[in-house]
Amino acid sequence: MKISALLTSAGINIGLCSLFLSLYSLLRKQPGFVYVYFGRRIAEDNDMNEDSCALERLVPSPSWIARAWQYTQDEILEIAGLDAVVFLRILVFSIRVFSIAAIVCVFGVLPLNYFGQEMHRKHIHSESLDVFTIANIQEGSHWLWVHCLALYIISFSACVLLYFEYKNIASMRLSHIIQSPTNYSQFSVLVRAIPHETGESISDAVQNFFMNYHASSYLSHQIVYRTGKVQKLMSDAEWVYKKFIHLKSTAIKKSCRPSTYRCGLCGGTSNSFQLYCNEFEPDGKKPSPNVSDSQTKPKECLAAFVFFKTRYAAVVGSQLLQSSNPMLWVTNLAPEPHDVYWSNLWIPYKQLWIRKITVLLASHVFMFMFLIPVAFVQGLTQLDKLQQMFPFLKAILAKNFTTQLVTGYLPSVILQLFFYTVPPTMMRFSAMEGWISRSGRKKSACFKVLSFTIWNVFFVNVLSGSVISQLDAITTPKSIPPLLAKAVPRQATFFITYVLTSGWVSLASEVLQLFALIYNAVKKYIFRVKDDPNSVPSFPYHTEVPKLLLFGLLGFTCSILAPLILPFLLFYFFFGYVVYRNQIINVYCSKYETGGQIWPLVHNTTVFSLILTQIIAIGVFGSKKSTVTMILTILLLICTLLFNEYCRQRFSPIFSNFSAQDLIEMDREDEKHGRMEGIHQMLLSAYSQFPPDVTTLDLFESRSPRGTIKDPECLHESHTM
Amino acid sequence: MKISALLTSAGINIGLCSLFLSLYSLLRKQPGFVYVYFGRRIAEDNDMNEDSCALERLVPSPSWIARAWQYTQDEILEIAGLDAVVFLRILVFSIRVFSIAAIVCVFGVLPLNYFGQEMHRKHIHSESLDVFTIANIQEGSHWLWVHCLALYIISFSACVLLYFEYKNIASMRLSHIIQSPTNYSQFSVLVRAIPHETGESISDAVQNFFMNYHASSYLSHQIVYRTGKVQKLMSDAEWVYKKFIHLKSTAIKKSCRPSTYRCGLCGGTSNSFQLYCNEFEPDGKKPSPNVSDSQTKPKECLAAFVFFKTRYAAVVGSQLLQSSNPMLWVTNLAPEPHDVYWSNLWIPYKQLWIRKITVLLASHVFMFMFLIPVAFVQGLTQLDKLQQMFPFLKAILAKNFTTQLVTGYLPSVILQLFFYTVPPTMMRFSAMEGWISRSGRKKSACFKVLSFTIWNVFFVNVLSGSVISQLDAITTPKSIPPLLAKAVPRQATFFITYVLTSGWVSLASEVLQLFALIYNAVKKYIFRVKDDPNSVPSFPYHTEVPKLLLFGLLGFTCSILAPLILPFLLFYFFFGYVVYRNQIINVYCSKYETGGQIWPLVHNTTVFSLILTQIIAIGVFGSKKSTVTMILTILLLICTLLFNEYCRQRFSPIFSNFSAQDLIEMDREDEKHGRMEGIHQMLLSAYSQFPPDVTTLDLFESRSPRGTIKDPECLHESHTM
Repeated sequence: MKISALLTSAGINIGLCSLFLSLYSLLRKQPGFVYVYFGRRIAEDNDMNEDSCALERLVPSPSWIARAWQYTQDEILEIAGLDAVVFLRILVFSIRVFSIAAIVCVFGVLPLNYFGQEMHRKHIHSESLDVFTIANIQEGSHWLWVHCLALYIISFSACVLLYFEYKNIASMRLSHIIQSPTNYSQFSVLVRAIPHETGESISDAVQNFFMNYHASSYLSHQIVYRTGKVQKLMSDAEWVYKKFIHLKSTAIKKSCRPSTYRCGLCGGTSNSFQLYCNEFEPDGKKPSPNVSDSQTKPKECLAAFVFFKTRYAAVVGSQLLQSSNPMLWVTNLAPEPHDVYWSNLWIPYKQLWIRKITVLLASHVFMFMFLIPVAFVQGLTQLDKLQQMFPFLKAILAKNFTTQLVTGYLPSVILQLFFYTVPPTMMRFSAMEGWISRSGRKKSACFKVLSFTIWNVFFVNVLSGSVISQLDAITTPKSIPPLLAKAVPRQATFFITYVLTSGWVSLASEVLQLFALIYNAVKKYIFRVKDDPNSVPSFPYHTEVPKLLLFGLLGFTCSILAPLILPFLLFYFFFGYVVYRNQIINVYCSKYETGGQIWPLVHNTTVFSLILTQIIAIGVFGSKKSTVTMILTILLLICTLLFNEYCRQRFSPIFSNFSAQDLIEMDREDEKHGRMEGIHQMLLSAYSQFPPDVTTLDLFESRSPRGTIKDPECLHESHTM
Repeated sequence: MKISALLTSAGINIGLCSLFLSLYSLLRKQPGFVYVYFGRRIAEDNDMNEDSCALERLVPSPSWIARAWQYTQDEILEIAGLDAVVFLRILVFSIRVFSIAAIVCVFGVLPLNYFGQEMHRKHIHSESLDVFTIANIQEGSHWLWVHCLALYIISFSACVLLYFEYKNIASMRLSHIIQSPTNYSQFSVLVRAIPHETGESISDAVQNFFMNYHASSYLSHQIVYRTGKVQKLMSDAEWVYKKFIHLKSTAIKKSCRPSTYRCGLCGGTSNSFQLYCNEFEPDGKKPSPNVSDSQTKPKECLAAFVFFKTRYAAVVGSQLLQSSNPMLWVTNLAPEPHDVYWSNLWIPYKQLWIRKITVLLASHVFMFMFLIPVAFVQGLTQLDKLQQMFPFLKAILAKNFTTQLVTGYLPSVILQLFFYTVPPTMMRFSAMEGWISRSGRKKSACFKVLSFTIWNVFFVNVLSGSVISQLDAITTPKSIPPLLAKAVPRQATFFITYVLTSGWVSLASEVLQLFALIYNAVKKYIFRVKDDPNSVPSFPYHTEVPKLLLFGLLGFTCSILAPLILPFLLFYFFFGYVVYRNQIINVYCSKYETGGQIWPLVHNTTVFSLILTQIIAIGVFGSKKSTVTMILTILLLICTLLFNEYCRQRFSPIFSNFSAQDLIEMDREDEKHGRMEGIHQMLLSAYSQFPPDVTTLDLFESRSPRGTIKDPECLHESHTM
């Protein structure tokens, strides 16, 4: 690839991005799309109203960027919670570290690469991109110490920044825990694998056990119910029926208030829903799980939420081994009420370990099976080989236009389509693992998507150029550094275009919300379903975090090898910072809060990227016969590993545990201000598996307690990628 | 090697064993060696007296075997504690599983191997041992299903037996915890990394913190002191001085009571020690750490023992994260008073992680550096090559006798000598890691010695025959099974002789206590030091457990490949059962009790052996072109892994935690019987870093609080291998 081709590609992508952004700045002013672009704000305050005259609506403007900039970190913390802030910290960290890397590498390493060999210089425009990579440096060159120094500067600054980010986020997490309004999950413990003798109810078993061993701190408990298969089928049928009624009532009402409908700012009322409720149960009686009607009473699970009088008691109850059989009376701190993944609570605890192993195997199989479409797509780009194998294709591919389409456009479309299946699949895998919280499920899916992306974008692409046929080479640890050292610079051009297409354009389409836009339009104008202010998507951490971390990995690994990637990447992170701020403020709703638990994953992945970079550098220095720099890089590698171990010791326990000191202080504070009584009262109704204002039939498992659509997250997975 | 050679070797070793055993049965009756052979019994009850007339003393008899058999498991539990019982359970498990394996393999697999190929049959005596291995089976043979079936039977019975052993030992551990007399460690928590402001003493900091956050359950605390370098040097000098005085006084007293000295049954009095005490401190004043004399007052460490009112409170205090900085107020359940490894308590908590990493690296380097003497020894057996390289050797090695000595005897002596350095080195490594308990240090050393032994005896020997020069092959995971499949049957003969020499003879020399005997004789008759009834060695788990597990590994891996090893191995385990019972009852003293914490290591190693066996079998079946058996073995491998995971879930938490239920029940029991007050009283003096009856100068770190010799364990390491 030549410089001119790269600039052309950049130009096209910049054009595409500009188009998307202008479109966005227009559409966001149209009231019809307010649910797409201001979902969170509508859900939070229904009276949201943008004063804009008709003319302004038709002129694209970059004012939204300025608005996104205006918010301070504290405001975002208040609006969207700590998780969103932590997500933005990933971007801040990336911008900082890649600014340093860009300065060092573009001014230090790039000229060295370019003048690395005596050669005939072409005009800069038609120069191949390879002359900017380390491949252009001669063997045994005395200038490799510059690369080594650059690597030292990048690694050192990355470690220092990582350390301060970790420290900063840990202290934010602590103050979030201490200062946040009462979190009922801190008083609650989820008990599973409850043993009970025949004749004794599960509720009695729980009460007896905790009254016996934790009498002073035990407050109450709540059994988890399981709705059976038949009930699930019935409720599914009811859901369809309800939707139908809903449609009908909307259609009737539409004629009465056409203006409000068109405006789209009126906010949803729940009249139609109430109507249906009354229709369905003419006597108005609402079934509750406490009613002793054997038909409607759901089955008890071997799980219960146990509430304690203090936070400290709850954390003690959750961390201690309760019984001498570790498979009985298994306790964990309960997730937040909105975070509970009810449909997994019925899973017997004994099944969990085997589920985890199965999912681990399945996700690895899925990861490697993905090589098949990749290989197929790579086949499409080599049409001559395909034609040799399948002669009948010759006639079809004779036309130039078809060939161009097949080789140029189809492969990436097919690959992208395959990639869209990954996050929902991983989400399903994580659900199968038996996570008891939505956030846990999402975090696990995030890790799976991350591994998948790094494997399939980085490793498969790097190795496919050289040794996809000899997979043996991958299994020989010693031969990996020289292999990567050869392959990474060669693939650097691909990674630059990847940043342009998959990075920039995906950000632009994220801000445009292409899928949500189409989905919304179809729903509204074809199916005539009214906008639902409650169906706001939650932030898709499991797709966005892996994306950022992948670009970080590409940036680190290419930094000293092919520094030309850095300016493009830096722009991606700046652009991403603005886009995600905007999305977090306007679009996504945070239904639950993990308190920044994603950061350890980010930290570990960044350290992994650094170490991979250093391993590749060792390979490069080795192949360039520069022993001193190789030894220096090995030293750097050891220091990076030690740094990681220190951070693990120092910070990671904070992200999985609460400290006794803090909890006791919080309890004392609440007691001093006389809030404890109120908390205890609220606690008893905090975890409602069956929300009181919805009928039992509406309560099947995979529906969130807040929304009315089937599972807002699952839905979201499929349309925001 | 031929059958006749094997039988000769077995004959020689049986002769050697018989000699050692007769010698033992004679020597044990001699009063002069009573401290060597009945150390534990003398330490426990000083009035031990064996009635035996002069004639009986001179006739070897196997009566000790019968006596060792007589003890029941409960009696051994009472005498030597749970750790000893768990050690004997390893032998019982091995006997059971290898009995099954021997029956299946000797009657099923062995004839099949022998008749595997059409060949000229020699007389059975001069038949090569190779015809009894699986190498004799033809490629594509239809009889390989017998091997597969045998592997299934062995794996299945091993898993079933392992499960029941684990279950049994877990319940023994639980009842040991519940029924054992008051264990002060259950009330105590070791706090490290105590932060304190300038001006505030550490003791005040501890008191303030625990009075603030654990006021209801906090009882008291005790600061750990550090004796400085100068004090250590001084005390070292004093130790030498003391020994000199001791020698002198012994020499003086010897003339007064020659008869008691010769009899050796009089039991040690501490008169001489008292004498020295008074001599050294003429005013009789004993310094104590509470005396405010700045010269003798030791420095305070950032560590303290904190005592709680109940066991439950202590376990809560030990398991919770105390502070929001995980590197401060680090709590662990305290070890038993006799188990505390005082000299490691001063290590700052912040150093621990880097110490662990350093030791990990160092022990791996040590493991691989050991290849150098192994290679040297292998060089000795190939004299012709050596002579080519060093021509001057020709003159020396011309004589036949020298050659025989060098090739036949020297290599194994050198190798054995090198092997003797391993356990003390690993013990030192483990001490450097910063374990706070002797048992933890020993367990860690046990693991290190185990890895070392398996690597250097099994893998290096197996691979040296084929590919020691191409270490690359080891780093390619895929090529390992076929490699092992080729190498293991070839090395089977070596392993059989290894069982004979290193197994049988080491047991015989264990019972004879060769090193202790020589050490004792030298000490007594040359240095004229009196026997010390308190210097009883503790059981060297860190050398004996790896030995047993290594033989288990050899048994499993060779079982279907070369079944001829099994009868020899079975005899080893039977013999070992008798010998170790005898040693546990008579010789070794258990100073502390871990409650069978070694079992998870035994379990995991056995599962590792099974999996290694199955991997080798997969390689063998693959090379014999038997696809069905290969697939069946892969299934078996997966089932074994699942079994291990289940056991890990079900049992392993019991071995690292106490359950709340049990602790609360124990606390209630003590309170009901009014024992709590007494326990609290005793608790305050249980952990005495400075035993009251010994002078301060005598108290330097590496001395056990009970014994008077420098470090009985370290001493023991060097003479019982």
